[in-house]
Amino acid sequence: MDRGSAEAPIGVFDSGVGGLTVAREIMRNLPAEHIVYFGDTARLPYGSKSRETIVMFSRQIIRFLQTQDVKAIVIACNTASAYALDEVSREGGLPVIGVVKPGARVAAEATKNGRVGVIGTQGTVGSHIYRDLIQKNDPRITVIEKACPLFVPLVEERWIHDPITRQVAERYLAEMKSQQVDTLVLGCTHYPLLRSMIGEVMGSSVTLVNPAYEAAQELKRLLEREGLANPGTDEKEFPYRFFVSDLAENFKEFANSILPYDVGMTQKIDIEEY
Amino acid sequence: MDRGSAEAPIGVFDSGVGGLTVAREIMRNLPAEHIVYFGDTARLPYGSKSRETIVMFSRQIIRFLQTQDVKAIVIACNTASAYALDEVSREGGLPVIGVVKPGARVAAEATKNGRVGVIGTQGTVGSHIYRDLIQKNDPRITVIEKACPLFVPLVEERWIHDPITRQVAERYLAEMKSQQVDTLVLGCTHYPLLRSMIGEVMGSSVTLVNPAYEAAQELKRLLEREGLANPGTDEKEFPYRFFVSDLAENFKEFANSILPYDVGMTQKIDIEEY
Repeated sequence: MDRGSAEAPIGVFDSGVGGLTVAREIMRNLPAEHIVYFGDTARLPYGSKSRETIVMFSRQIIRFLQTQDVKAIVIACNTASAYALDEVSREGGLPVIGVVKPGARVAAEATKNGRVGVIGTQGTVGSHIYRDLIQKNDPRITVIEKACPLFVPLVEERWIHDPITRQVAERYLAEMKSQQVDTLVLGCTHYPLLRSMIGEVMGSSVTLVNPAYEAAQELKRLLEREGLANPGTDEKEFPYRFFVSDLAENFKEFANSILPYDVGMTQKIDIEEY
Repeated sequence: MDRGSAEAPIGVFDSGVGGLTVAREIMRNLPAEHIVYFGDTARLPYGSKSRETIVMFSRQIIRFLQTQDVKAIVIACNTASAYALDEVSREGGLPVIGVVKPGARVAAEATKNGRVGVIGTQGTVGSHIYRDLIQKNDPRITVIEKACPLFVPLVEERWIHDPITRQVAERYLAEMKSQQVDTLVLGCTHYPLLRSMIGEVMGSSVTLVNPAYEAAQELKRLLEREGLANPGTDEKEFPYRFFVSDLAENFKEFANSILPYDVGMTQKIDIEEY
């Protein structure tokens, strides 16, 4: 398969399982596309690591995905999108998109009162990437940012509809509410799994922006523009392949709770060789 | 400085900052010893990763510590002690001790009703290393194990004395209480920082075993036995040196909250080169 052919797969990567929420949106919205997913489970989480480290990790992963002849790459991790996208975009001639730019653009378009909230990991929030990109779209918008480091482990405990998670959400989101944001960006791939609880805490008048969904829409436009959309004529038995850097048992378990089918065929690779 | 000389430092390593609770016990109990600390902050946490990955990481770190001419190594991470100690002990001719064996021995000695609880990360609990070692000390002991993955991020949020942390502790420890353990092993380096709350939830009749303290005692005996105890005659200006694989801001912040002095001199190294 030639690189750049329409039949080639999309490369999607994340620090772990969270990016499967992005893969899921691509599966739903671009059902003819094949996907090669890489989860860097040996080195997760990215949220608390430095820019330099995340850029190095991202380069290694892109080199690996290139060996899988992908036609485009989606950085499904907010932290890696924030830190590495500008440095790796068009790496090796491939189009690379992240989740942050599409999420920021839609948030800037959605707000009516000019007050947008952003929640994410320490890395994403500390980089101020959403704030900077939202204000690039419209400099008059006020952006309130808040790191919510307990949300990921709460989701991984599957305490999704739970009074403890509700209290954590209420504490984390108290400032967003008092600052009267009318739009809230779910700036971490795990957070869409808490969408209903976050929606309840924020109230129905607040628009929740899911960058995973917006990235899938962006990818769709990109593939059409570059003539790379898969015509869907080749019926592959396994259109989705999964790779991880560490085969911990809970990857499969958690992946199966996000995706509607068995990802038992996950392969481990040594990412430090790339 | 010759390797194996009494003036040489102790190498201590962990996946991140948690092992500083072990370094702190060595500082308190062996005040003449120098320490080279390595925190693998680029690849933390270890708790959810596989044995194979943890053994590989541990070997790299030991090779780095050998370049610092350490005389002995303490694996200050429960997961790495569980997975890697047997494979790396006496690596390069150096004595290596972990936190698990000393903790398990003391727990087996402390219980009166033969019912011991062990809490830790998924990796430590899933390895059943504490259970196996406690029962090697006394096969009649019943061991109840429970992974508590939210404790680490709660400690790192500094929600140490907090009603949310209390509810999480009550949920995690409910089975320990109903199973009437009289001894509970704090099988993760962060957990001693929740010691008072865990003690309140369990009740004053339950003995809490802190493997960090027991490892410092074990190290003391080892150094005396091998004639390696530092006579304390060389007055070094900086008896403690800190290295990390990623210089995230929150390492220093959190380290300073565990140790009674500034660890601002922390150096970053590329651990994947070792």
